[in-house]
Amino acid sequence: MSIIYMLDLFGTFAFAISGALMAIKKDMDLFGIIVLAFVTAIGGGTIRDVLLGNTPVFILYDPIYIYISIIASFVAFLFYRVLFKINSIILIADALGLGVFVCIGITKALEANVSYPGAVLLGLTTAVVGGVIRDLLAKEIPAVLIRDFYAVTCIAGGIIYIILLTINLSHNEIIFSTAGFIILLRLLAIKFKWNLIRVSSFSSKKSF
Amino acid sequence: MSIIYMLDLFGTFAFAISGALMAIKKDMDLFGIIVLAFVTAIGGGTIRDVLLGNTPVFILYDPIYIYISIIASFVAFLFYRVLFKINSIILIADALGLGVFVCIGITKALEANVSYPGAVLLGLTTAVVGGVIRDLLAKEIPAVLIRDFYAVTCIAGGIIYIILLTINLSHNEIIFSTAGFIILLRLLAIKFKWNLIRVSSFSSKKSF
Amino acid sequence: MSIIYMLDLFGTFAFAISGALMAIKKDMDLFGIIVLAFVTAIGGGTIRDVLLGNTPVFILYDPIYIYISIIASFVAFLFYRVLFKINSIILIADALGLGVFVCIGITKALEANVSYPGAVLLGLTTAVVGGVIRDLLAKEIPAVLIRDFYAVTCIAGGIIYIILLTINLSHNEIIFSTAGFIILLRLLAIKFKWNLIRVSSFSSKKSF
Repeated sequence: MSIIYMLDLFGTFAFAISGALMAIKKDMDLFGIIVLAFVTAIGGGTIRDVLLGNTPVFILYDPIYIYISIIASFVAFLFYRVLFKINSIILIADALGLGVFVCIGITKALEANVSYPGAVLLGLTTAVVGGVIRDLLAKEIPAVLIRDFYAVTCIAGGIIYIILLTINLSHNEIIFSTAGFIILLRLLAIKFKWNLIRVSSFSSKKSF
Repeated sequence: MSIIYMLDLFGTFAFAISGALMAIKKDMDLFGIIVLAFVTAIGGGTIRDVLLGNTPVFILYDPIYIYISIIASFVAFLFYRVLFKINSIILIADALGLGVFVCIGITKALEANVSYPGAVLLGLTTAVVGGVIRDLLAKEIPAVLIRDFYAVTCIAGGIIYIILLTINLSHNEIIFSTAGFIILLRLLAIKFKWNLIRVSSFSSKKSF
Repeated sequence: MSIIYMLDLFGTFAFAISGALMAIKKDMDLFGIIVLAFVTAIGGGTIRDVLLGNTPVFILYDPIYIYISIIASFVAFLFYRVLFKINSIILIADALGLGVFVCIGITKALEANVSYPGAVLLGLTTAVVGGVIRDLLAKEIPAVLIRDFYAVTCIAGGIIYIILLTINLSHNEIIFSTAGFIILLRLLAIKFKWNLIRVSSFSSKKSF
């Protein structure tokens, strides 16, 4: 079992926990919790495979992603009080998942010979679409659209990946550098509450 | 015309009616009614075909699903007062559709050589995703995530299908046993208002 | 560069502007604006390619659609005050995009040998699904489901396309006639505020 695969499973678990906690917040039943855990964890990779035409999509072959989502759901169901408190652990696990998912998405995209901007886009898709589906199902405006610079981190990481690729590093070196960069940038963004500019920041200044 | 195909068209009609009634509740215009009827009826099968790579998807070849959705929309538009009253007829038709759709989904999945858990997942997808899209378009939290054990019924049926498959029953025997099991379980769940546990059932006990 | 391709890029720009303005209304940050611009502009074509099995989908090969969406986002971000005022220019650009997108959708569908009703459906999908995703991400009931007869215009145009095809016009003649018909019908619908009937128009009459 390769390190990438292990990190992938770890990221899947972290994303599944975030989906399950959202379902618990919305007072869904145990099935709703499992579904939200599952779509959050595998939504991005599934959409990536569909856009690439890698079908049947990966979750249909390798049932481990289903099992991980179910286990994460029970963990969240039993320990949600603790999990809501130790928010920082979830954020760190989520950052790790983010780094790994971007790298896996870009790697699969380049194997299918898509353009570099297309590959960066698919890295982003792999990392954030699961969370978007989670928020849609829970009737929230997708967090990625309104919160800090979650997605900008993925895009910056994707650009790093392409740059490292053109200077001929090995695949493992690229993956670990890119994932490390994303994880670090994400943790810094959380720590220092970085945000992107929005129109209202201007308008409000002008209103007064 | 095979019995499965006839039941498929019947289930399509039942699902289309449920989509059309949701659109009427939300005061959509006639086009909105047709769209909601259509996506509710064919959403699950379409997503299944996309995940499997069975493209162009089935609705693009066989226009009968489009015609059925349009007819169901006009039926709902003209008789919605009656239909809202005889809710039990809709629930029974919906249960029948559910049983058939799960079986069709699993059968198509196994033809594409996916794993058994993947096949059960696709049976569920075929049966419930149309309703999920209906609820998203109507700005409702998907019913399947918060109500009784609609989806659990589909998963239980899917597991029955796999078990029957391993003991070498004929395809028709498997289909009719599985569909029958799902329809029966669904009707019992409605009759006795079975629900899954949720976190709030615990919290509320502890709050008092 | 063919005229169709140029019109396609123009329509993409118009749709991207409409997505960006929705994001600004919802107070999203710059990234949210780019995402909403992008999915509005390419959502319909992407879903069409997925349903047809034309994968990897077009945006992954030709990055110009990504660049156009980003440019449109900055234009909307800088000039949103002006753009909200000259609403009629946006509506005209949107009508032009609508005409072109329907034609491109049907052309690609017929190349994949789908049924005529399936082709009309894919023309409609190409034209309206981007807007539906925009509205879902912004937590609005999709405009196409509740407003005037936006989608009916696309379907009527699609039927015109199929009729012109059977009387053996050249591809260019069909495209320009169909697109022209859709643009004209759309502008008339806006001018005269045409709407489809809905149930409440009956109920309200009967209530009084």
